[in-house]
Amino acid sequence: MDVLAIGDALVDVKATAEDAFLVEEGLVKGSMQVLDTDGATRLYARMGQARETSGGSAANTVAGVAALGGRAGFVGQVADDQLGEIFAHDIRALGVEFLTPARADGLPTGRCLILITPDAQRTMSTYRGASHELDADALDPEQIRGAAILYLEAYLWRSAGPRAAMERAMGIAHEAGRKVAFTLSDIVCIDAHRAEMMAMVESGAIDMLFGNENEIRALADVADRDAAIDAIAAKVPLVVVTMGEAGAIAIERGRRASIPIARIGRGVVDTTGAGDLFAAGFLFGQAQGRSVEDSLRIGAIAAAEVISHFGSRPEGDLRALVAAEA
Amino acid sequence: MDVLAIGDALVDVKATAEDAFLVEEGLVKGSMQVLDTDGATRLYARMGQARETSGGSAANTVAGVAALGGRAGFVGQVADDQLGEIFAHDIRALGVEFLTPARADGLPTGRCLILITPDAQRTMSTYRGASHELDADALDPEQIRGAAILYLEAYLWRSAGPRAAMERAMGIAHEAGRKVAFTLSDIVCIDAHRAEMMAMVESGAIDMLFGNENEIRALADVADRDAAIDAIAAKVPLVVVTMGEAGAIAIERGRRASIPIARIGRGVVDTTGAGDLFAAGFLFGQAQGRSVEDSLRIGAIAAAEVISHFGSRPEGDLRALVAAEA
Repeated sequence: MDVLAIGDALVDVKATAEDAFLVEEGLVKGSMQVLDTDGATRLYARMGQARETSGGSAANTVAGVAALGGRAGFVGQVADDQLGEIFAHDIRALGVEFLTPARADGLPTGRCLILITPDAQRTMSTYRGASHELDADALDPEQIRGAAILYLEAYLWRSAGPRAAMERAMGIAHEAGRKVAFTLSDIVCIDAHRAEMMAMVESGAIDMLFGNENEIRALADVADRDAAIDAIAAKVPLVVVTMGEAGAIAIERGRRASIPIARIGRGVVDTTGAGDLFAAGFLFGQAQGRSVEDSLRIGAIAAAEVISHFGSRPEGDLRALVAAEA
Repeated sequence: MDVLAIGDALVDVKATAEDAFLVEEGLVKGSMQVLDTDGATRLYARMGQARETSGGSAANTVAGVAALGGRAGFVGQVADDQLGEIFAHDIRALGVEFLTPARADGLPTGRCLILITPDAQRTMSTYRGASHELDADALDPEQIRGAAILYLEAYLWRSAGPRAAMERAMGIAHEAGRKVAFTLSDIVCIDAHRAEMMAMVESGAIDMLFGNENEIRALADVADRDAAIDAIAAKVPLVVVTMGEAGAIAIERGRRASIPIARIGRGVVDTTGAGDLFAAGFLFGQAQGRSVEDSLRIGAIAAAEVISHFGSRPEGDLRALVAAEA
């Protein structure tokens, strides 16, 4: 297997919204907030008609790896309910191995309420539900040993139970000589857990770190972007930083490579999933033994495809797009 | 209220598919088939990743009436489950009055598996679930008396329980001096129930009949389109016939009016909901006391909007589109 991810198992509930609605609801555009059951019910009741699609950051990433022709797996917790069935169906339909049994008792399947404003930005409110009930019993050590890269997301890592599962998985992966990749997910995840996250980074548990420029600055606790990147790159063998319109860079043991953004089809329709799919392309390239430059290029193509349509998972033929650019 | 509809309460599960997949599954392109639980589970497992949106033919129609600025209501049966919650949320978010309580015991909320081929045609497989458990107890006589037009769909009418509810609703509407409209839905609905359907039409229970050309020919049991339309128009005060690319015609007591198709935005992306939204525009016009010609025009605009994007309910501002054309 190329990439095995452990992450949130969420169904996205997407509606368009005017900027005024975000103001009324006290939401900061582009941010991610966590809601309890009541908060999620309240916001959902006020949202417009929605479309439901499977989501979850790391789940989107392995969906992208599979769409690129890679062999991918996913570990994440859903409940034994209709949304859980939808999540499991969709990820398997893409060819991702998904073995985590649904939980019959406990919270319902998690969901992410996503408001898309006319500028194509998305503002997310997550009800985590069953997703954060994941524990170490859900792991299959053989599956972890068989994957070139184990990929973990900070969204899920910040809860104690899932974090314990991830720590165990990292141990199994490293013992088997595999790489561990980690995505910073969101500045809120970092701000609340910076010391522990930094300790994990400094312990050598992470071989490959993904983040956008704000996340890297938050983790380094340094305001200047380049200084922040240098500080983190001194501690992690391979750091990948996405910078929106400015493209992305990777620093591997002091060597810097960069890529501008790619454009596909109708341009920017919905930015949901851009970072997740950039990671998919980069991880796929690395798992296939490609250079850092090639991996960046595949990441840029996968990100460009996902933002050219509504939805946070690829719809076009990513393999053909990558082949056409090569 | 302008329009109150009684119809299937379904969640659409849409995936793209190649023509070869329809052949493998023994599906006839453009058709609608009914599946039992096992059949629905089997087909869903073989479909690609999907997006879920609220659907149901008459429900889409009242969603359109509301989007046009009309006052609309819907009667339909969902279960007390996550898909039922999604259906209720979406129709209310559009401003449609939806009072039918969810059923706690019985079948899960119905769904319609829709395969969209590269030519933008859709092939539908419906698991009816709770939807056909609707009975007359779900009716609110005051709500029926308060609506200018009661709109019924043949998809739901073909089941005995819902048909009994519809017959009671028709009686209440006519006693209150309201109009009753009926859509033929699909040739399969007609072929299996032609005699009863014709008896209903001949009894004077229907004031306004909607169908496409194939459905009108099936109901009349006449191969020639114009002869079939004339035969049905002799029995119903107002008949509206949609003819795909050829537009639509209406015959009101012998007087014929027609409208070509309209084009909006990107043209044809997904034809799901075209007939439902044509009916929405026409019904809205009639409920507002507009002429048959104006009603046809509003129908054409609403249909053009819904086929210009994925999804069977309007996303654009239908009021503004109609105002711009007037």
